[in-house]
Amino acid sequence: MKIITGGVTAAKGFAAAAVEAEIKYQGRKDMALIYSEAPCVTAGTFTTNLVKAAPVKWDQALVYGGQPVRAVVVNSGIANACTGEEGYGYCRKTAEAAAAALDIPADSVLVASTGVIGMQLPIDRIAAGVTKLADEKQFTEEAGLEAARAIMTTDTKPKYVGAEVMIGGKTVTIGGMCKGSGMIHPNMCTMLSFLTTDAAITKEMLQKALSDDVQDTYNMVSVDGDTSTNDTLLLLANGLAGNPVISAEGADYETFKEALHYVNTELAKKIAGDGEGATCLFEAKIIGAESHAQAKVLAKSIITSTLTKAAIYGHDANWGRILCAMGYSGAQFDPEKVDLWFESAAGKIKIIENGVSTGYSEELATKILSEDYVTAIADVKMGSESALAWGCDLTHEYVNINADYRS
Amino acid sequence: MKIITGGVTAAKGFAAAAVEAEIKYQGRKDMALIYSEAPCVTAGTFTTNLVKAAPVKWDQALVYGGQPVRAVVVNSGIANACTGEEGYGYCRKTAEAAAAALDIPADSVLVASTGVIGMQLPIDRIAAGVTKLADEKQFTEEAGLEAARAIMTTDTKPKYVGAEVMIGGKTVTIGGMCKGSGMIHPNMCTMLSFLTTDAAITKEMLQKALSDDVQDTYNMVSVDGDTSTNDTLLLLANGLAGNPVISAEGADYETFKEALHYVNTELAKKIAGDGEGATCLFEAKIIGAESHAQAKVLAKSIITSTLTKAAIYGHDANWGRILCAMGYSGAQFDPEKVDLWFESAAGKIKIIENGVSTGYSEELATKILSEDYVTAIADVKMGSESALAWGCDLTHEYVNINADYRS
Repeated sequence: MKIITGGVTAAKGFAAAAVEAEIKYQGRKDMALIYSEAPCVTAGTFTTNLVKAAPVKWDQALVYGGQPVRAVVVNSGIANACTGEEGYGYCRKTAEAAAAALDIPADSVLVASTGVIGMQLPIDRIAAGVTKLADEKQFTEEAGLEAARAIMTTDTKPKYVGAEVMIGGKTVTIGGMCKGSGMIHPNMCTMLSFLTTDAAITKEMLQKALSDDVQDTYNMVSVDGDTSTNDTLLLLANGLAGNPVISAEGADYETFKEALHYVNTELAKKIAGDGEGATCLFEAKIIGAESHAQAKVLAKSIITSTLTKAAIYGHDANWGRILCAMGYSGAQFDPEKVDLWFESAAGKIKIIENGVSTGYSEELATKILSEDYVTAIADVKMGSESALAWGCDLTHEYVNINADYRS
Repeated sequence: MKIITGGVTAAKGFAAAAVEAEIKYQGRKDMALIYSEAPCVTAGTFTTNLVKAAPVKWDQALVYGGQPVRAVVVNSGIANACTGEEGYGYCRKTAEAAAAALDIPADSVLVASTGVIGMQLPIDRIAAGVTKLADEKQFTEEAGLEAARAIMTTDTKPKYVGAEVMIGGKTVTIGGMCKGSGMIHPNMCTMLSFLTTDAAITKEMLQKALSDDVQDTYNMVSVDGDTSTNDTLLLLANGLAGNPVISAEGADYETFKEALHYVNTELAKKIAGDGEGATCLFEAKIIGAESHAQAKVLAKSIITSTLTKAAIYGHDANWGRILCAMGYSGAQFDPEKVDLWFESAAGKIKIIENGVSTGYSEELATKILSEDYVTAIADVKMGSESALAWGCDLTHEYVNINADYRS
């Protein structure tokens, strides 16, 4: 596997564009287009929130229906959630405008929105934006990166990644972009993530690969425990790599999954590390677990704990909060057998052994916790399974952002 | 029912004391004693966290064992959690010191601790504190209030309440004190809450009354979603009111439960409103639910949502976050039928009707949300059940307190 810059235009036959449509922001690009010159089979996973935004409903109908997909239109600023029939109608109008401008069927256009809940989209500006996007689409890396910038809300950095693998003698590329930041506690998928690949693969295997991989990547991220109304993860495959079609499990499928897992893991970590107001990526690693499921529950409970997140912000080795979070997770283990380490670029330190403090150096612990990527490793000594989860610290800036998000 | 000032000395035959033992704090009282001149039947509920502090284990053994209780010794500053065999031994030593000083059996002494996890108690200072507490105990209201002050950690106010009812021609009093503030997301009970009553009641009915009432009071509070290792709720009944012993359900039991529910509800609200860094008590009320269980799940999800809590801090009527929190709660309802109001001393305003915005006045909404006791009321239009839950806003001060709690 080869790691590449990536983005949604990395795979063959995919173009992108980004424009200023003034949906809610001024002076920045706030609409993006992903376009494939060939029809794509498409896999998707969506929010499990009972309150589903209109674009989620629109995309579910198309992805589950199995129509070939040609384009995805995304806007930031307004989420088109809790907008009733009117909001759903705007999804249709957006798709129709894209269909007209790109000369493709309206039911081959997916849509996605992120931003404030409860506000209606300014459909005239959306329609004008779509036309401009169609005119300006390009197959360049730069166009893909501009698209990654346009879908940001409170994100501080555009997020994109890519990987190449050889399948049947052909180079197969997967690239992706996503945005995260707030209301991030995915259950089935993250806020908005778009993956494109030129792999030739059946819809069934594409969905299987995506659904499986989501469990250990996006679903192991939490910024604030809130599962969004708009969570959407789409994977478009246009087959232009020319590899033998992947239609069953086997070596080719595994190779494809390896690249997909890399892309999803990196995007998930980027979302966690750029959580609203975050100063660091906080990773929890459970080792010695009886089962992978147990390890996942424990790891996710740690990175979700508000008190632990605040302690990480303070570079405070307050390990009691970590053990406490493991204790209320619902997973069974013996607290009096747990060993715990903190690790970062600055070193690794054992904090507790068999549930009690090792009498570690607070100074060294603080130094390790002052890095921008910090891992807590807990060994529960019950077996050989492990799991990773990713979150971030809880900061003053998080409160700033969310106490006054709409103003 | 008559509402009284309350506290743990309000009921007949209960004394209290508070002293400076220098457990961790300097220049403030940090140990408290509750003492009954007559043996008490005792009910208790405890944390469901797998990681249980030593005093929780000590109290569970005594309360479940059924021995009569005569005293409770409480310290703040150090939680005696994650302290292994050594920590459990200090519970025994504390009880033995109290037994010697008060001339009562060691297995009639309950203990409770709150503060930092993972640090051992300075047992010599604890023992000296216990002796002083025994010397200084008094049956006055002031002694009860001093005890409420001594058990505070990041609490800003002592919390106590009381009620009187007539049972069989006798005045029966229930008084209580509690402390909350951080690591508050009780499941079975809150951080530390101590109730005393002079009611004559069997242990079985006392436990039943307490266990039932906890479900709609302490268990409906969340400050930060973290279930503490130390949650303990104790209810001591010494029978000195002289009422006919309550030994079965019926009118007397209902009267007792009414007073108990008042005391628990008020203490629960005090814990929520004085959550770490909080500027307001945030109440969620679900009406029109199909079942009480459904209403509870929805109400608790609202007050637990980090994003909603930040919006309340910003006096921002960001209702989308409330609907979102209801949506991921796991309870079933139709988002497109929900009506939502905000209410406070400044008025009441309908924000959404049938899932979409009413086009309400943002100015009035902000005014209503600027009070220190704010209620969100959601009608899910499925039946006639309701539930209340209590939380607080998420503030800069919460981050300040928890990023640097141990320093």
